[in-house]
Order: sequence, then structure tokens, then C-alpha cells
Amino acid sequence: MKETDLLIIGGSAGGILSAQMARKAYGNIDITLIRETKTVMVPCGIPYIFGTLRDIKKNRIPDTGLHDANINLLIDNAMEIDKENKTVTTKENGIISYKKLIIATGSLPIIPTFIPGYDLGNVFAILKDENYLNKIFEKLDAAQNVIVIGGGFIGVEFAEQARVLGKNVTLVEMADACLWQAFDKKYTDEIENLLKDKGINVMTKTKVKKIVGEKSVEGIELDGGQIVPADMVILGLGMRPNGALGKNCGLEMNAKGAIVVDQYMRTSDPDIFAVGDCAEKKCFFTGKDAPILLASTAAMEAKIAGSNAFQLRLLRANKGTISTFSTKIFGRTFAAAGLTEAKARQEGYCIMVGEFNTMDRHPGTLPDAQKISIKMIFSKCSGIILGAQVFGGNTVTEIINILSLAITKDITATELNTFQTATHPLVSPSPIAYPINAAAMNAIATNCNHLNEGLTI
Amino acid sequence: MKETDLLIIGGSAGGILSAQMARKAYGNIDITLIRETKTVMVPCGIPYIFGTLRDIKKNRIPDTGLHDANINLLIDNAMEIDKENKTVTTKENGIISYKKLIIATGSLPIIPTFIPGYDLGNVFAILKDENYLNKIFEKLDAAQNVIVIGGGFIGVEFAEQARVLGKNVTLVEMADACLWQAFDKKYTDEIENLLKDKGINVMTKTKVKKIVGEKSVEGIELDGGQIVPADMVILGLGMRPNGALGKNCGLEMNAKGAIVVDQYMRTSDPDIFAVGDCAEKKCFFTGKDAPILLASTAAMEAKIAGSNAFQLRLLRANKGTISTFSTKIFGRTFAAAGLTEAKARQEGYCIMVGEFNTMDRHPGTLPDAQKISIKMIFSKCSGIILGAQVFGGNTVTEIINILSLAITKDITATELNTFQTATHPLVSPSPIAYPINAAAMNAIATNCNHLNEGLTI
Repeated sequence: MKETDLLIIGGSAGGILSAQMARKAYGNIDITLIRETKTVMVPCGIPYIFGTLRDIKKNRIPDTGLHDANINLLIDNAMEIDKENKTVTTKENGIISYKKLIIATGSLPIIPTFIPGYDLGNVFAILKDENYLNKIFEKLDAAQNVIVIGGGFIGVEFAEQARVLGKNVTLVEMADACLWQAFDKKYTDEIENLLKDKGINVMTKTKVKKIVGEKSVEGIELDGGQIVPADMVILGLGMRPNGALGKNCGLEMNAKGAIVVDQYMRTSDPDIFAVGDCAEKKCFFTGKDAPILLASTAAMEAKIAGSNAFQLRLLRANKGTISTFSTKIFGRTFAAAGLTEAKARQEGYCIMVGEFNTMDRHPGTLPDAQKISIKMIFSKCSGIILGAQVFGGNTVTEIINILSLAITKDITATELNTFQTATHPLVSPSPIAYPINAAAMNAIATNCNHLNEGLTI
Repeated sequence: MKETDLLIIGGSAGGILSAQMARKAYGNIDITLIRETKTVMVPCGIPYIFGTLRDIKKNRIPDTGLHDANINLLIDNAMEIDKENKTVTTKENGIISYKKLIIATGSLPIIPTFIPGYDLGNVFAILKDENYLNKIFEKLDAAQNVIVIGGGFIGVEFAEQARVLGKNVTLVEMADACLWQAFDKKYTDEIENLLKDKGINVMTKTKVKKIVGEKSVEGIELDGGQIVPADMVILGLGMRPNGALGKNCGLEMNAKGAIVVDQYMRTSDPDIFAVGDCAEKKCFFTGKDAPILLASTAAMEAKIAGSNAFQLRLLRANKGTISTFSTKIFGRTFAAAGLTEAKARQEGYCIMVGEFNTMDRHPGTLPDAQKISIKMIFSKCSGIILGAQVFGGNTVTEIINILSLAITKDITATELNTFQTATHPLVSPSPIAYPINAAAMNAIATNCNHLNEGLTI
């Protein structure tokens, strides 16, 4: 029987970083990582295989990170966990005993079995498997009419890439807007207009009744009876936790099928941790279930689990997901973190909002200057930031990361109004109009009336 | 006699933002701003007039911000402050009485009167004056051999732009390295190599003995006697506070000629505030004098003064400058905030350092991916971040701004290791290798040996 100190099941962001962190934290222990596939895809890079990379091999996560950290890598299937005996049964390597176990088995695409025709030929979900994605690649190159069902990030990004390839693309979304979970209406309008301007047929508030065709898909039928022809359908209905291993060995699970974890990333068994898409997610603000599955959340959780595997070192570290997103659509970057205004109101927060528009270079006359817009949502009473949305050029993602940190640390509007920033003409907005500072200033202004009551100047 | 509630002297970043903030904070008061010139230059944009913008008018700060905030704008010279009678005497508009006054008179270039020949023709300092800069513009276009004295930000940026125009450029710096105040050796080496690769003659550890020529400059003589020919010399020896108005009316001044201010940006007169380059700067970490003159620091101070003008609203707000810098040299962006490793050691901090290199896109095979390098310096005992340096593509400036906020808020290495980030293939590093997270992880690793003492796994 193989023995290892730390066994990790899963080879994507959560597994890799758990292993690397444990190596750095605990020095010379024995660490083994099991994954099912010979290669691993960069998960968020998958849509860009089709239009931008044009070579599926370019989207692999290199194994150098594991080799450099001296991790034993097994390409194998973990079949069963025996938590009483602290062993895992594998298909190829027999039984492996562990001192601590980290489950990082990720997620699987939601297959809409309630839509007739979901299993026709040329209907694809987005599996993170190189061979499967290669089939999509070949089919997409040959296709003329492509329908994407679901206007979340994967759906929108896939639609954009298919359009870049010159396909006729229809994007069908049940809700009022694409990406409505991450952005308020002004921002989703901006996104929808961009998609439409570039020739994508965006159908919101639209339900798919069935996928039609003989053996292969020929089109979809909408709730109203309309038929949209297609020789390929992509299902972008989201992902579900792949928690089967945990469930089968008797770990506590939540209603969504995710493995329940505490703030240290421990499951109901103190020697087993779970991280990433297979682990329960809670909202940073409300503590409610927050089934937002992101590689960056997995990365955070992995580092906590890796640090805490043999001793609790990062205290109360997993405070919940702040849902920090970013995407780039036809050259424009959109990013968000925390609560939207709509969600904050719905949850009952008393809020103040600050918005600001400027150019992302200064002077704005510089050749590659782009417009940048920001919206920030604060607790009106405490001043603490609750959420933000930004769109503009390539730097928008790092601007939202400033606010991700601010959200995590309960930073206030006055602090964000006056925090010192590096600026430079060729790469940033002006210090006079730095978007975070300026939007925070605008939010504060909405709150000054009551401060000025009774003040004589 | 004109009367105004809030009078502001100075029309660059400090003045403009003081006015805008006061408008938002106090509503419908009378605000007047006096500035000397009809137009105002974006200060940090000045080097880019010559090679990139190629039109001096494009580098103007538009007046729309002042007009939109309903600020009375006077193009005039403030001659004298009478703080007993709370009035300012101007050249054109007579005496103006104020309730509160904000001095934002900026800085002036240091003229090296100790170098003979400093006043020859075609020897220019960088004044922030459109007409004067236009003379430099014309002369630079005609020049062949350009010498820049001083390897600070202005010197390096001017040298880069002159080289972009195809000039023979020599950059002379007395210290071991250009930009040594902002970066440690590895980073200054990177910068120096970049400058040399592009054909700039970089001479560090080099003193200028005199500037030679009849009426106009013909060259410089170095300390060793070597003559370097030049038909144009730029003096980039730094700036000094323009505090004369404050000094002449009896405000408390520091040894550098800057107006002394408290944490509320008040001078020794409670009705007079000072912000920006003319106001005293203290180091965020040590409280020592920190004569770092930056538009972004001015912006921070202006918002504090504007908020606090009639009531103290932002408490203990000016905690000192964290020296947050950014520049772009031949397409590479360099940024820094806080203490360098050298400075931290010199000040006696017990530190730990984390470094990391990765690509700024994921997968790194994406067409426009650039290498990105980060170095972070922490207090080894408390874990709190003390400083950071980054170089890479355009997003580097916003990455340093995450760390500017982190420094301001005493955030620790473990927090920076696990904070949640938005990432996206086309605009950011991978969540597995997000540079701030990863460098913090490496710093922590240097500290784990003593945690593992006595631990049996």
C-alpha cells in the first residue's frame, strides 16, 4: 500500500495550489496529487481556444509548478474514500493511505435534461477535457449557425469567440439580461449593446422549449414556438459541484451537492479538507449559500487548506466568496466584485452609490486612451464598501482587484476617496480623476446633506 | 473687495481637487480658485508632449472639472496673504477676503547654480508652463545631441522620449543607479539595461563638473575631465516646494521650505490649509521628512483639505506619503510603493521578502502576454506589508495600487496570500499564479521553518 502525508484529489487550480502551499508551509513532507487526465486545461481559458489561441495545446496548465514543488503526480481515478482507515482506493495505483486529504474535484456542467433534445448530436456542454473540447473545436470550425443557451460568463465568452470566427451566433438567456448576476442594468445594457453591435443575435427573457433535430441538432424551438436553426448548440447553463467522492464516504453535504466546509476548509471529517468548486460556497456579506464557482475562489481556498492541513495557521480565513469576476468582450473589459446595487437592495442594505466616468490615460488625448466607467456601492451608515463594477480597457481587472481587497477588509468610502495611488500618463487615469477615488467622493457627496445641517459658513 | 467662502491658490491637481471636494462636501458655498496661467499642463504628462503627443495643447488639463463644480476661476497672481485680516492681495483682482484658504502653489525645478554654465542657452529645467515647454519642444526637434542631468523619473522619461525621436541621448546620474529611490538593484538593473538596449548612453556614478559653451551649451564636462558634446541640456535634478506665499505671511515652514501641515492638512494658521508639493511631506512608515512630490499625493491631500475646510471630517487622514510611483519605459511598466528592501534595512526593519515571476496573461501562450515580476517586502514579525515593486505590462500600475491600499491599511502577507482576485485569460495572470498572492506565499514560506519546529507529521 502506498503511503503519503498529504493526498490531494484533483489537478486544477484548487489541487495545484493546495499542493504548492502545503510544500511551502510544511517543508519536506510527502505530497501526492491524483488527477484523471494526462493534461489539464486552464479552465477560464477554454472559450479562447476557439477564436484566439486556435490550438488546444496552448491552453494547457504546465506541470512545471507541480514538478518544481516535488509533488508526486499520479494520473489515475480516485474511486472511493475510506475515512475511518484514512485511505483512498484508486483504479491504477491500488489503495493509498493519507494523513491528511484534500478533495479538489471541481465541477461538472449542468445538463438540462428537462429540455427535450439535450442529448442530440452536436449539442455540447463545456467539459474541461482536452479530447472533448477538441471535438467542439472541429465542429465549430465547420458550423455555420451556432446557438449558445445561457448568458453567463461561459455562454457570453463562447458566443463572442464563435462570432470572432464569423459564425451566425444566437445567444439565448432566460433572464432579463446576460451576466445579470454580476452587473447592474447599465452595465448589462452596455454588454448587450456590444454583443448586438458585433452581430450576435441576443435573445433575453427567452426560454428554450426543445432542441430539435433527427440525430443531430437542426435548431431550437423557443417557448413561443419560434424555431431558430442551428447546426451546433452550446449549453452554458452553469456548473454543479462534483462532490460524489465526499458524499459516498459520508461527509456532510449541502443541498446543492457541495461538500460542507468550515472557515479552515475542513469538512465534517477533521482530516479531510475540500476546496474549489466541489466545496460549499457562502456569501461574504450574508453567509447565505453562494454557488459562484470561480478558479480565483478555488485558489484562495486552496491556499487556506494547504496552510491549515497539519496545523490551523490561517485563522477564520475563508470569510466567504466576494464573487469577483472579470471578462473581456470584443476588446472591452468588464469586471465586478461584491454585491450589485440590485442585490444589495434586495438583501435590505441601506446603501449609497458613487459613479464616475473618465479616460484610462491622462491626458485623455493619448492615442490608446479608452473610456472607463466605475460604480461603487457602500453601506450608507457604516461607509463600508459592498460592491463595485467597472468597464473599460485592459487595466479594469486589476482595478476591481483593488476593490476586492477593499471589500475583504471592510474599507470605507472616505478611505477609498483618499488612498494614495500610483498613476502614469501612459497606463492609468489621472490622479485628479482616479476612478476609485472619484466614485467614492461622489458616493460621500450623497451623504453630506445631513452633515451640513445646521452648519453656518 | 471681493469676498469668497473658500479661496484656493493654485490650479493643478491640488487646487482642482480641493475645490471639487469642497463643493461636494459643503454644497452651495462660494469657492474661488486663483491660478497664474491661462492653461494648465498635466504635470506627469509633460515628458510625453515631446515624443508621444507631439502637440503641447493635447497635454492641457481641461477646465470642465472646475466649470462643472461651479468654481470661480481667476487667472491672476496671488501676491500676499494677510492672515490676520484673512485676505489675499492679487495683481489683477485687488484684495480678496476668505473664510478659509487652501494654498496649492506646487513646486519649482531645482536649478543647480553650483554647476557653472547652468544658465547657458539651450539649458532647460522642466517648468510646468506651456510657453516655456513649447521652447523645449522646438529646440528638441532641432537638436542632435541631448544630455539629461539627473536620473529620477523626469530625467528617465525625458531621455526615453528624446530617444524615441531618434536623438543621441546621454543620461547622467550621480548615484549608483537611475530611479534608485523607488527600486532595488534588480529593478534598477532591469531599467538600466532597457535604456542601454535602446541606445541611451547611461552614465551612473557620474558627476557633472560644468556645462560648457559660449552663449549656448556645447557640452558638459564630467568630474574626470571628459567632455560630452551637446546642443541641448535638460536639468532633471528634482523639484522644490514653492512655499514663498506661506513663508512671507509667517506660516510655520520646514527646513526644505515646505509649509508645515498637520494630519488634517491645516497649517499653523487654523484657517489656512496647504496641499500638494508646497506642503510638508512625511514618510508613512517613519514619520520622517519625505520630500517625494507627486500629483497623486497632492490629490490625496486635496481631498482631505476640501473635506476638512469648514469642519474636521476626515480624522487623522494624512498618515504620510507611501511614495507610490509608476513609469513606462520603452513599452515596459515599472511601479513601486512603500519602502524598498534597501531602505527598509537601512531604517532597521526586520523583514521578509517574497518575489515571483509569471506571465500577465493565462495561458502564457496568448499573443500579447508579457513577463511580470513582483517583489514584496514585509515586516517579518508582524507580517505587515512595507513595500512592493512590480514590472511588466500596462496593468502593473493598478497592481501596485492594490498594494498601495494594502500598505495604507497595514495588511499582512497571509491576507495578501489569500485575498480573492478577479482574473481573466486575456487581461490578467492566472489565479494559480496571481503575482501578489504568489509573492506573499513565497514570503510566508521563508517564515515557516520556526513554525514547523517540533511539529511531527
